[in-house]
Amino acid sequence: MSHNSFGHLFRVTTWGESHGPALGCVVDGCPPGLPLTPQDIQAWLDRRRPGQGRFVSQRQEPDAVRIASGVFEDARTGGPVTTGAPISLIIDNVDQRPRDYAAISTAFRPGHADWTYFAKYGVRDYRGGGRSSARETAARVAAGAIARKVLGPGVSVRGALIQIGAHRIDRARWDWDQTAENPFWSPDSAMVDVWADHLEAIRKAGSSTGAVVEVEASGVPAGWGAPVYGKLDAELAGALMSINAAKGVEIGAGFAAAALTGEESSDEMRAGNAGPVFLTNNAGGILGGVSTGAPIVVRCAFKPTSSILNPRRTINEAGEDIEMRTTGRHDPCVGIRAVPVVEAMVACVLADAFLRHRGQTGGGAFAPGSGERA
Amino acid sequence: MSHNSFGHLFRVTTWGESHGPALGCVVDGCPPGLPLTPQDIQAWLDRRRPGQGRFVSQRQEPDAVRIASGVFEDARTGGPVTTGAPISLIIDNVDQRPRDYAAISTAFRPGHADWTYFAKYGVRDYRGGGRSSARETAARVAAGAIARKVLGPGVSVRGALIQIGAHRIDRARWDWDQTAENPFWSPDSAMVDVWADHLEAIRKAGSSTGAVVEVEASGVPAGWGAPVYGKLDAELAGALMSINAAKGVEIGAGFAAAALTGEESSDEMRAGNAGPVFLTNNAGGILGGVSTGAPIVVRCAFKPTSSILNPRRTINEAGEDIEMRTTGRHDPCVGIRAVPVVEAMVACVLADAFLRHRGQTGGGAFAPGSGERA
Amino acid sequence: MSHNSFGHLFRVTTWGESHGPALGCVVDGCPPGLPLTPQDIQAWLDRRRPGQGRFVSQRQEPDAVRIASGVFEDARTGGPVTTGAPISLIIDNVDQRPRDYAAISTAFRPGHADWTYFAKYGVRDYRGGGRSSARETAARVAAGAIARKVLGPGVSVRGALIQIGAHRIDRARWDWDQTAENPFWSPDSAMVDVWADHLEAIRKAGSSTGAVVEVEASGVPAGWGAPVYGKLDAELAGALMSINAAKGVEIGAGFAAAALTGEESSDEMRAGNAGPVFLTNNAGGILGGVSTGAPIVVRCAFKPTSSILNPRRTINEAGEDIEMRTTGRHDPCVGIRAVPVVEAMVACVLADAFLRHRGQTGGGAFAPGSGERA
Amino acid sequence: MSHNSFGHLFRVTTWGESHGPALGCVVDGCPPGLPLTPQDIQAWLDRRRPGQGRFVSQRQEPDAVRIASGVFEDARTGGPVTTGAPISLIIDNVDQRPRDYAAISTAFRPGHADWTYFAKYGVRDYRGGGRSSARETAARVAAGAIARKVLGPGVSVRGALIQIGAHRIDRARWDWDQTAENPFWSPDSAMVDVWADHLEAIRKAGSSTGAVVEVEASGVPAGWGAPVYGKLDAELAGALMSINAAKGVEIGAGFAAAALTGEESSDEMRAGNAGPVFLTNNAGGILGGVSTGAPIVVRCAFKPTSSILNPRRTINEAGEDIEMRTTGRHDPCVGIRAVPVVEAMVACVLADAFLRHRGQTGGGAFAPGSGERA
Repeated sequence: MSHNSFGHLFRVTTWGESHGPALGCVVDGCPPGLPLTPQDIQAWLDRRRPGQGRFVSQRQEPDAVRIASGVFEDARTGGPVTTGAPISLIIDNVDQRPRDYAAISTAFRPGHADWTYFAKYGVRDYRGGGRSSARETAARVAAGAIARKVLGPGVSVRGALIQIGAHRIDRARWDWDQTAENPFWSPDSAMVDVWADHLEAIRKAGSSTGAVVEVEASGVPAGWGAPVYGKLDAELAGALMSINAAKGVEIGAGFAAAALTGEESSDEMRAGNAGPVFLTNNAGGILGGVSTGAPIVVRCAFKPTSSILNPRRTINEAGEDIEMRTTGRHDPCVGIRAVPVVEAMVACVLADAFLRHRGQTGGGAFAPGSGERA
Repeated sequence: MSHNSFGHLFRVTTWGESHGPALGCVVDGCPPGLPLTPQDIQAWLDRRRPGQGRFVSQRQEPDAVRIASGVFEDARTGGPVTTGAPISLIIDNVDQRPRDYAAISTAFRPGHADWTYFAKYGVRDYRGGGRSSARETAARVAAGAIARKVLGPGVSVRGALIQIGAHRIDRARWDWDQTAENPFWSPDSAMVDVWADHLEAIRKAGSSTGAVVEVEASGVPAGWGAPVYGKLDAELAGALMSINAAKGVEIGAGFAAAALTGEESSDEMRAGNAGPVFLTNNAGGILGGVSTGAPIVVRCAFKPTSSILNPRRTINEAGEDIEMRTTGRHDPCVGIRAVPVVEAMVACVLADAFLRHRGQTGGGAFAPGSGERA
Repeated sequence: MSHNSFGHLFRVTTWGESHGPALGCVVDGCPPGLPLTPQDIQAWLDRRRPGQGRFVSQRQEPDAVRIASGVFEDARTGGPVTTGAPISLIIDNVDQRPRDYAAISTAFRPGHADWTYFAKYGVRDYRGGGRSSARETAARVAAGAIARKVLGPGVSVRGALIQIGAHRIDRARWDWDQTAENPFWSPDSAMVDVWADHLEAIRKAGSSTGAVVEVEASGVPAGWGAPVYGKLDAELAGALMSINAAKGVEIGAGFAAAALTGEESSDEMRAGNAGPVFLTNNAGGILGGVSTGAPIVVRCAFKPTSSILNPRRTINEAGEDIEMRTTGRHDPCVGIRAVPVVEAMVACVLADAFLRHRGQTGGGAFAPGSGERA
Repeated sequence: MSHNSFGHLFRVTTWGESHGPALGCVVDGCPPGLPLTPQDIQAWLDRRRPGQGRFVSQRQEPDAVRIASGVFEDARTGGPVTTGAPISLIIDNVDQRPRDYAAISTAFRPGHADWTYFAKYGVRDYRGGGRSSARETAARVAAGAIARKVLGPGVSVRGALIQIGAHRIDRARWDWDQTAENPFWSPDSAMVDVWADHLEAIRKAGSSTGAVVEVEASGVPAGWGAPVYGKLDAELAGALMSINAAKGVEIGAGFAAAALTGEESSDEMRAGNAGPVFLTNNAGGILGGVSTGAPIVVRCAFKPTSSILNPRRTINEAGEDIEMRTTGRHDPCVGIRAVPVVEAMVACVLADAFLRHRGQTGGGAFAPGSGERA
């Protein structure tokens, strides 16, 4: 309900601006007894961190996370575990350069939230976009690390970049192991040089480029999600579209499903040991808003960042026509660092769906043949 | 927050199964004093109604709506107006044929929610899909009619079908007036015969086909929506993806944005009389999750219905491999009747955004030049 | 979260006015597989029904409930069970007498919501108070019947009237069995004649009187409820104070706790077979917002109805000073029929707490000695 | 919905344990443009602060608050104002003494949440009660300071202590000015010495005592609140009962209303300049869940703290019968410091009601005589 929160039983609230003292989140409703250290979270934050290569923002932020509440030593192991109380995570901003932003204090950068925040609120923290900055996504990734703990090792959520600009990977060459071997999370090793060349050209041109991220969650049992407005795909779509620069979301076959016939689209089933085995997965692991047991597959399209060096026509707070170019430190392709963010959002939505399913039904899925919950 | 509700201040809860006695919705939080008659709602329901042509389901449902609460005679006009109390709308089902569905009572139709409902709940109303039936969307359209009253005549929400199967309209021929002149809501008159032929072939083949719907909301002032998880685009994405058979959602340029450069993507502005005039609208009327003042443009992809006459491999509740074909009355292209449904969902999301914006800020948008709310 | 809904996982939305065509509720999030017939609900509604004696309203309403969605035949038993889909309950109004209310159409009865609804909405259904009528509580009782199914036979929720006017029961004579033996739900048989005489005098005087209801829920395991704003006592307090005419809520010792010392107030514990045995229950079964395992005890004070025959000073919509007396059919003591309503609200809150506890933790309580969930 | 949040449009989420590094809150949905400095908040925190006299805990906590997000310099005034983004407030804990609590690490103090947290979660931060500590209320008071900004100077929320132990004030001597002149917030100067003697005796006896707090909100216009489950009194009751040690909540006449007749209870009206003038206020400023325009009056009963020096019977985690006494630093009467906490909760509920009313209706109240919104 509130503006800066999402989730129902596993609920995440984030706060903080790009150039304020800190940012953070409060994760409420987490199950108790889960081992959780700052290092568990840091590992995921480090994947999203800026300043790690020439294709991402040069802002130097360690993104060191502190756990300010909600964990305590377990009597049995002595190690820290979640207590069921709200978990407050705080990440200090250390590389703010507010003076970079004086030029935009009274002007509206095209393609940014400058104008809309002004129109809505009449006041805005213009430094790096303030609340609208992609820096907020660090809090999402931190929350996602806790969500992964809730999901446990049986559920794997992993992402890849499948398109930069007009250059799409060849799905026939998909290799998940490759995503860890290149700075783009590309599952197609043949695409790495193509993208590197494209990004280099974009960067030199002072321009930017869009991208598409794909995330797969495997190990999700059948039964998560809830018709009809709490559909798992609806929750995923809302969560992903809330990420900065997102312009489209697909589940399974997505927009391509429009051109299919019913025979091509509907996934046939054969009996398996624990429920049906799907011969295809155009549904992306979700039917009627509820998980099928097959991998959940989502895609999210990101527009190119609007922070570009080339001059653009716009207006200012006084209502005058002006031209402006955006200096400062920016990612030429925000889609790259969005990979861990999309993963995190998927993990959070799934953790929430898991808890809600357990709440309403007791958990587990009915197995064909027995009519009993597995 | 609950499973069968959406919206925050303008909140819609729906109920009912395809072959139960009735379906309906409760619209809570509606502003008082809005004139509202059953006819106001009926007009929109009639656009979605089945049994109206050879390209939609032959089920004969008048979809006559009753208003069971929340309106009362206005002391000044004598006509019925909303009172601020919850509005209960009830639509009786009159053309149920439960016997059509005996064959699927213990089997899972591929591409349907049969399996997932069973897995989640262990029991399911299999008649026509029960709760997962597209019949539920009548309640959405009814709620949308009230949402339009909340938005008032200044906001126009209208939809079109832009693709059936592989056949896309030519946007250069877009004419909104055409959408009322053909059974497909096509804005491109040249596409009508193509689609008719395609659908005739699909129908004869006992198959089905997908589609893409586009909806535009014009007249939405700048300032609606709320960062960061209550983003207007996030709310729209969640709402649209909750529609039966939806597999993808786009805002503005959508997935095409991935292939653009920052120069191509970001919409330039020039000073206008009441805020900026956008020279393009790749943003689809939303930046940073808040409306820009430009028309809001969304697209939603629908898969072909999985109810097809051709035999398909699947399993049953006993866990056995079987083949089944789906008889009964079905739309060969559910995307067609989805047009008024997408419109309704957009209207509901906007009405809610309007009320929330007014709640937090008092309403209106800050105008450049004056620094005051318009 | 919305105005006419309560609960989180077990969520109830009600609608309807006193003299509209019908009233009802939608119960969403109910676990699947629970046997449920209209008779199961009717039994509880009949306890609240008007027209059943000289001490309650003479309005003749059968309060016959229909289940319009959310149940279906169970494959194993053939009987109707909940499906997990929203359960829509509808109760027709049959004994409306709108003409009784012409006199109040432009005047504000003292002590009623007439003025506040007008002030808020500018329009109001004045017939019998419209939405503010106690008739709405029929929907609560219907929902409570479903909540009892969720709680199962292990949890017993029962209520009693412990005070009418200044006449309080003697707790030393408390006998639950007596509550079914008199028209007041009195657990103290010696109070029955006292109350009957008091009510007869009140009725003849054209006046009304207040009352206090006490409800006990036994069998609630330790662990339900959630700190700190979702405390079980906070949820109960909100739920009870939402009942028409409620003016106070207590848990356990309640206001009397203010006069106690820490020694007197805090309940000592001894080891039992399944957790602690409490030697007293001043806590009313809740500590830190979470159930202790002891019976949950709540009390709710109801003011006398403001519908009295004696003339009272007030104003009308024109802003003029007037006098008015309230005719029509009214309960001289609304607290009597409030007993099943308070029970129902307690049952709904507990059902929700149960599901939320199961969602976050998996359910059950840790047992001392084993450190494992029971 | 989440456990550690309350409010709808004005939404507060708190986090932190008694002996963790810090505690804090996130206030989301605050209107933009409100001047806000740490000093604005500190002033209210200082009223609740421990270590300020012999009748409250000796723990020395400066309760210095930092604003970590959500404010920015106003372009016109240069001073900090709210931006509409979430406001994160952080208060460091500086006087933790975790070693004080070793004795209770495996035992359940009677009357505390020790047992229930263990039963629910299986793990608990036993240091000072962890999340269940009254230290959490600092975050409520901080949020309340922002709520007061939202309400503006026209609404005054002020509290008093009206009972300690069995000693109640004489309402005939009520003088609001006196509440600032004694350490008990007593409006009755004659009660100060009585309470001081009582507390001194209680303290020497190693015991504790309960209390009753009354809060009045004046200046609230008619029309705030929302039937029927979002009633203003229901929201207040839930909010107040969520405060540590609260056992009862009353609105207006409260439990005393049970002994009144309809003539005594219902407040008569006369025409005033801006709506009705109420001749009495047994309703406590709320009818039908909506504010009447008269002052809102609530009372909240607090039990004596269960932290007492005298030995008490209880059990431990091993399930053994033991005796324990609670050392450490405690308030002999937690009700005293609860006064600013109850005020804060009332302010937060009212701020939320204001924004929701404005959202649904546009704001203001209909005035008798004109039929137009004031």
